[in-house]
Amino acid sequence: MSAGSAGKLIGVGVGPGDPELITLKAIRALAEADVVAHFAKAGNASHARAIAAQHLRPQVIELRLAYPMTTEVPKCSSGYRDALRGFYDEAAATIAAHLEAGRIVAVISEGDPLFYGSYMHLHTRLAPRFRVEIVAGVTGMSGCWSAAGTPIAQGDDIFTVLPATLPEDELARRLSDANAAVVMKVGRHLPKVRRALGASGRLARAIYVERGTMTDAKMTPLAAKPDDDAPYFAIVLVPGWEDRP
Amino acid sequence: MSAGSAGKLIGVGVGPGDPELITLKAIRALAEADVVAHFAKAGNASHARAIAAQHLRPQVIELRLAYPMTTEVPKCSSGYRDALRGFYDEAAATIAAHLEAGRIVAVISEGDPLFYGSYMHLHTRLAPRFRVEIVAGVTGMSGCWSAAGTPIAQGDDIFTVLPATLPEDELARRLSDANAAVVMKVGRHLPKVRRALGASGRLARAIYVERGTMTDAKMTPLAAKPDDDAPYFAIVLVPGWEDRP
Repeated sequence: MSAGSAGKLIGVGVGPGDPELITLKAIRALAEADVVAHFAKAGNASHARAIAAQHLRPQVIELRLAYPMTTEVPKCSSGYRDALRGFYDEAAATIAAHLEAGRIVAVISEGDPLFYGSYMHLHTRLAPRFRVEIVAGVTGMSGCWSAAGTPIAQGDDIFTVLPATLPEDELARRLSDANAAVVMKVGRHLPKVRRALGASGRLARAIYVERGTMTDAKMTPLAAKPDDDAPYFAIVLVPGWEDRP
Repeated sequence: MSAGSAGKLIGVGVGPGDPELITLKAIRALAEADVVAHFAKAGNASHARAIAAQHLRPQVIELRLAYPMTTEVPKCSSGYRDALRGFYDEAAATIAAHLEAGRIVAVISEGDPLFYGSYMHLHTRLAPRFRVEIVAGVTGMSGCWSAAGTPIAQGDDIFTVLPATLPEDELARRLSDANAAVVMKVGRHLPKVRRALGASGRLARAIYVERGTMTDAKMTPLAAKPDDDAPYFAIVLVPGWEDRP
């Protein structure tokens, strides 16, 4: 077998958390994969792996790609970036060896692989050299607004996804400038997000969602949330569609 | 049986077009539904129905909700809005009768039901009175960037969805202001979209996608597309993630 022609890399979205929100295409990809890889943070169980587990072949080779311990290094530093780059390079090399041996390698992602997914770091490194297929998935944010029963955008609405790390005035400006929005990675930024929503006139319609499609999901109008406790992956939904017929 | 307690409305996303991009949860909802409804434009086959067809019960009641012929009325006119409102009211009343009779009614949507989906018009009318469940789906835009193999957003990227109907300077301003974007409903607006992408310095990375997850999908760097022919549902992807480690 010639290198690069036999193996196949598949980026598989397994959906937002509910094991039933996986697609038939993802299940088929998992069933045909010789190797199934997932990213993991030190000490954390992988939701993606938990969802995929029941669909794997008995003889599958599993690869756990564990992020390096870089919490002691500032995120914006070149040391942190170098450590991450080295980690992704090494993970890509490991997978490349399986692909060169003619294996089908599925890399699983929560949500959708090409929408804020770690898989993208492998994709950019391997897609130029190997056969690649992407299995789109239900995103975490779709899971959240569905669990909350909140129509998010309609018609000619402008919809935007904003990281909670933005400065307060930037958040407020961008919230004012969109019809509908999702604020991601809320965590310790919640007091700032709350003030920006107030300044942009969006606080009354904002919905706070924690663990959106898990069985222990929490959701509440943000204005009614009495504290500012929020885990890193909490999100705030700002529904649009003000012009309802 | 008391009205409002027995029946259940399910908004079911069936994904972006590829019949394998339907979720297990959607298949279960279709298998348990007594009534399956879909929206249809006059003279057009419904993609959502084609995807769902193989998962329906043999004795299912099918409801085709056909949009009124309003092409002769300007879209912004009150006449158009009144006709649409009347149509949605009537569709909701038909479904309410089934729900009051204790039936499970699934309304199928391409993509995700609460993200630019027609189902939302029924949801707002029926959710206050009946038990409602939402089955999130893979969106059309996820289907498109997956088919194109294009990582769309990463890390702290700001991602935005823009309708091609916006004025040229608004489009250019908003494209400049986001890291990643999707321009929807391109159709006859393609020359304007192309100019706005040029003005915002985004033309070189823009990808034009037509029928993203169909077997006859077309995708090309927009700068390499020789003409301005585009169907209504064509989209343009503007990938972000400029800061790759």
